[in-house]
Amino acid sequence: MPSVVPEFEAANEKYVASFTKGDLPLPPGRKVAVVACMDARLDPAKALGLEEGDAHVIRNAGGRTIDALRSVVISQQLLGTREIVIVHHTDCGMLTFSDTDIKAKIRDDLNENADHIAFLPFGDLRKSVLDDIEILKKSPLVLDVPITGYIYDVKTGKVDKVKE
Amino acid sequence: MPSVVPEFEAANEKYVASFTKGDLPLPPGRKVAVVACMDARLDPAKALGLEEGDAHVIRNAGGRTIDALRSVVISQQLLGTREIVIVHHTDCGMLTFSDTDIKAKIRDDLNENADHIAFLPFGDLRKSVLDDIEILKKSPLVLDVPITGYIYDVKTGKVDKVKE
Repeated sequence: MPSVVPEFEAANEKYVASFTKGDLPLPPGRKVAVVACMDARLDPAKALGLEEGDAHVIRNAGGRTIDALRSVVISQQLLGTREIVIVHHTDCGMLTFSDTDIKAKIRDDLNENADHIAFLPFGDLRKSVLDDIEILKKSPLVLDVPITGYIYDVKTGKVDKVKE
Repeated sequence: MPSVVPEFEAANEKYVASFTKGDLPLPPGRKVAVVACMDARLDPAKALGLEEGDAHVIRNAGGRTIDALRSVVISQQLLGTREIVIVHHTDCGMLTFSDTDIKAKIRDDLNENADHIAFLPFGDLRKSVLDDIEILKKSPLVLDVPITGYIYDVKTGKVDKVKE
């Protein structure tokens, strides 16, 4: 399979040629940390109107906040963010398997034991957002800041706020 | 402090109005997972030429791969990615503190003990990329796929490949 590397480097050359953001400070200008799923169809910057310098963007499988805790604490304690926005999305891969499933697949395909990892899939998308807000609100390491949770619709590009 | 929420939602309305990517499949089209720092000045999609649907983008403080392992395994085992690209960057916040520093700050400011978290700062940027490639290569849960590490220069937008 051909590597993406030559394409990534060619795209980067174009980016550099029109780059104008060389003087941005380290702390995010809009003082917000976004926690979003790694899904390929979601571009948090485009979907939420983020420019370079605006926000920390933390992404993992599912956009799970328990797996983002180290980064959120660094974002707040060292870089001054004071708001959190969570973005999960429709048709998420995390809705398609169980922790037992993936551990069995790893045992079968790789002959390895992955019992020490919680893969954090979920069965209810809306509840996954509410759970992830709650995890941050209950953590003694996370400041009491505004937290908003969204579901991004991969069919329309629209974010819908999840209300409790 | 005013919330970013109204601005995010207004930006999303504009995104939706010109959205044309509603039919993308779940697995990343370019079969690659990008592991990058959460830094606000880095937009991996813009810097590497990623369109919606192309790649998993995993981001955390420092772009540390040990903290991305759950997501990388899901990306490979369930969604078929077969290449990994790591992006750390110049002027990273992770170069500015020690694990001891942040734990002391949390004790002082929040009166909480964070000794159970490894915050994963680093003192040598180039070495952080090589270490993070090595962590993936040594993990029995990660497939033997091409892994490329870059340092993104926040002053120029350029990515430089880190060679061993």
